[in-house]
Amino acid sequence: MDQESQQVKQPRGAKRRARTRANLLMAARKVFATRGYHDATITEITETAAVGLGTFYLHFCDKEEIFNTVLTEGREAIRQQVGEEIAHEGIFSLPVVVRAIFHQVYAQRDILRIERTGEGIAARSGGPGMLMEMFTRFLEQVTDLSPFSEEEIPLLAALLEGLMDRAFHCWWDEQDEPGSDLIADRVLYVMRHGFPASLFEDPQQHSSLP
Amino acid sequence: MDQESQQVKQPRGAKRRARTRANLLMAARKVFATRGYHDATITEITETAAVGLGTFYLHFCDKEEIFNTVLTEGREAIRQQVGEEIAHEGIFSLPVVVRAIFHQVYAQRDILRIERTGEGIAARSGGPGMLMEMFTRFLEQVTDLSPFSEEEIPLLAALLEGLMDRAFHCWWDEQDEPGSDLIADRVLYVMRHGFPASLFEDPQQHSSLP
Repeated sequence: MDQESQQVKQPRGAKRRARTRANLLMAARKVFATRGYHDATITEITETAAVGLGTFYLHFCDKEEIFNTVLTEGREAIRQQVGEEIAHEGIFSLPVVVRAIFHQVYAQRDILRIERTGEGIAARSGGPGMLMEMFTRFLEQVTDLSPFSEEEIPLLAALLEGLMDRAFHCWWDEQDEPGSDLIADRVLYVMRHGFPASLFEDPQQHSSLP
Repeated sequence: MDQESQQVKQPRGAKRRARTRANLLMAARKVFATRGYHDATITEITETAAVGLGTFYLHFCDKEEIFNTVLTEGREAIRQQVGEEIAHEGIFSLPVVVRAIFHQVYAQRDILRIERTGEGIAARSGGPGMLMEMFTRFLEQVTDLSPFSEEEIPLLAALLEGLMDRAFHCWWDEQDEPGSDLIADRVLYVMRHGFPASLFEDPQQHSSLP
């Protein structure tokens, strides 16, 4: 009888525990987004989450651990939602992949900003790794990469990832506009057509024309 | 008389001082390239430079300071040599700029590797900043950026910089081949023509063809 009631209780305890953890993570995300890594305090996180300070230490060792957990879970959420958006579109082409990534990163741009406040502390594996993995998987499905060879998939994935990364940080680190659709259009233009043709001429020759 | 001889002596002392400093920096660059930031010791640096330990502290506070000085001066040397290579070519077009950057970064690829061993310690301002500045200056000279506007120069510069950055790190962090000419060709192809056209189709549609 005692054993049975314990078996019933344990999942309930685990659920409550998971709820408290999620609650702490949501509060931490809010506090890090406002204060940045260095100025955020564990006390402010627990006050925002409306739990005692002791409860924090049941779930996380320190500020650095909860910071990296916020980032890891944020990135994982982005990855999942990008996957869902692509599946929903039903087309697996570069514009669909790129638009989905821009949409979801924009929707969770607080993660970009939080990451930036903790440079050197933020575990870096997640960021470039996630997009590299997506683009590699995408490129492996493409049958004709000419004039590139299959061996060059890592380079192509890295170049695509580099373009996305710089586009994210170009505005969204500090402002909300322009939003994801406009940025996706501009970046997709470059991906499809390259940079403006005039960049490949010598502008000094033009300026010396009469 | 005494004052006069001091005035003569001072520049000599300054010269010797500068020579010792350059000597220490060259030794540090070698030691950091071999051991990485974390395993390098000040003793190994002074032994390689053939100076006493006390001499080190006349020039630098600690390992972090000499590490960041190696990086800053290395980047400055790359920037200068890129400028010289472009001036020597006499043409200021994207292919010339891109090739010059690849040549010089490849020639000093130990700087990339050293930087990477000290992530979180390495002052970051130099890296992306240097290329962003070069590309911004270049783009400001181009009269026709269509379909982009002048307001989009920061985005275009960031995208170009992102492509270069990823290309550097794709191989040169760990291996010496392929060298700068081949990488420049591949990256310039993408810059000029965009990514392979088939990436913009839905590969799943192709695979479902009979």
